[in-house]
Amino acid sequence: MHIVVLAGGIGGARFLTGVRAYARAAGAEVTAVVNVGDDVTMHGLRICPDLDSVMYTLSGAADPERGWGRVGETWAVKNELAAYGAEPSWFGLGDKDIATHLVRSQMLNAGYPLSAVTEALCQRWETGVRLLPATDDRFETHVVVDLDGEKAIHFQEWWVRHRGDVPTRRFVFVGADTAKPAAGVLEALATADIVLVAPSNPVVSVGPILAVPGLRAALSAPVVGVSPIIGGSPVRGMADKCLAVLGVPCTAAAVGGMYGARGAGGILDGWLVDSTDEGAEVPGVTVRAVPLWMTDEQATAEMVRAAVELV
Amino acid sequence: MHIVVLAGGIGGARFLTGVRAYARAAGAEVTAVVNVGDDVTMHGLRICPDLDSVMYTLSGAADPERGWGRVGETWAVKNELAAYGAEPSWFGLGDKDIATHLVRSQMLNAGYPLSAVTEALCQRWETGVRLLPATDDRFETHVVVDLDGEKAIHFQEWWVRHRGDVPTRRFVFVGADTAKPAAGVLEALATADIVLVAPSNPVVSVGPILAVPGLRAALSAPVVGVSPIIGGSPVRGMADKCLAVLGVPCTAAAVGGMYGARGAGGILDGWLVDSTDEGAEVPGVTVRAVPLWMTDEQATAEMVRAAVELV
Repeated sequence: MHIVVLAGGIGGARFLTGVRAYARAAGAEVTAVVNVGDDVTMHGLRICPDLDSVMYTLSGAADPERGWGRVGETWAVKNELAAYGAEPSWFGLGDKDIATHLVRSQMLNAGYPLSAVTEALCQRWETGVRLLPATDDRFETHVVVDLDGEKAIHFQEWWVRHRGDVPTRRFVFVGADTAKPAAGVLEALATADIVLVAPSNPVVSVGPILAVPGLRAALSAPVVGVSPIIGGSPVRGMADKCLAVLGVPCTAAAVGGMYGARGAGGILDGWLVDSTDEGAEVPGVTVRAVPLWMTDEQATAEMVRAAVELV
Repeated sequence: MHIVVLAGGIGGARFLTGVRAYARAAGAEVTAVVNVGDDVTMHGLRICPDLDSVMYTLSGAADPERGWGRVGETWAVKNELAAYGAEPSWFGLGDKDIATHLVRSQMLNAGYPLSAVTEALCQRWETGVRLLPATDDRFETHVVVDLDGEKAIHFQEWWVRHRGDVPTRRFVFVGADTAKPAAGVLEALATADIVLVAPSNPVVSVGPILAVPGLRAALSAPVVGVSPIIGGSPVRGMADKCLAVLGVPCTAAAVGGMYGARGAGGILDGWLVDSTDEGAEVPGVTVRAVPLWMTDEQATAEMVRAAVELV
């Protein structure tokens, strides 16, 4: 059995620990197709926040308190960059994390595609899940905001620097017109027995994955999504702010409707919502309500079981 | 009064603290033309060991015990790079130091010449001396060695990894055929009242500076060198090993002879040797013996006074 998961950062990473636990028990293999829209170059370093969150979380190297980056992190480089007056100063760049970015940047500059770089980085870690970037091509989420006039800023600037608290017009996926699925992605989807959509931010984590041309059309296996919204609030992060920009209500049903039923131009065959949202309906999609709080790996593996058994 | 100093790394940096002390008392300004032959790119970072040694030492930010890099340094990035198996692992790359390299690399990649980058980095520090790289062009000292056959390795690999303990044929200054003096170097030499050659390694620190086409010919002011050899041994470093490769005896007189008298195709008007080497002669050059141990800034300033007063 081959399970493919479309995933963003922290939410996707935690979900994947449950998928891995479920897969180990079921003798299944797992491939994660990870959002790259958050990727950014800072201080000359190529940074892939979602790929790193997944890699670190699956390896037990992530900081569970902070929610991103490495546990036991130090900040000497960041402090020195600030002393030089180097911008941006608002981005969290830990010393351990920088080693990952240095290895990645050097391989990318040498011409390796991000998928090969990701595989090389993962050789150090015991992820138990194959990680693939959604695309090897340049693909970045930018945000059109009203900030001293209308302008586009990188998603990280919107998210980290402004915490989304700035008049926002729309999200733009730069490169989405020409990007192709990364090496291995179409093959993974073609051999998938089921595709799970992690409870990641539907607008800026899963949205960019689905915006890679050719990827939606390759979703031939049954697709089951897990709602990132519980009782009208995001499980974590700022999905509410992102949904508001699109005019989509922050409810499990509305997000399911945004993904849409396979038969109606969407992608979903099944939609898993939290027990709180029992009764939520998405036209054309099989909906089931189970506890969706990822309190621990076991609870998360139970969610995954429910998702797999839904279709 | 304008004093120009040709300088390498640690020896040059310590000498410059004395030049600065002398110049403050004399109301003089100081420009250091610094060796770039040691410069190297590792992990995608452009590293300029001599410029950094001078910058850190003049600012009190250098580690006096280790002899290179920053005081209070940490090594998180280096340890993480090693955990990824990233090579080279034998080069000392401290966390604080990496911030310098990141700022420098980003500016170089953006197209700024090394002289402008050096000026920008120095804005943070109170060096009291203007630092100029010998050249803005790619210029690297490589070493032809017998190591599983004849091959050329970067100077840093010879120096740091092999400690010079490998059969060595010759030094090669890569880029010396096309390099030009960096922005500001010819102007500094043209306005110099005296040029001092620091007691740096004559083969791999001062040698590469003099190998930049056009630089020797611009030495119009009186030139006084300070011997890096005292009593037949280098003050520090591995000048003896480097001199042996060239077949030059490791003595104050022989190094003075290697630089040569201005009237005989060389550069020197004066040559300062240690009291131990009293009586050393360099044909055509005024030689004087004074204490040359740079035990503290005051002793070093006295050396500088003797050098300035020699011609």
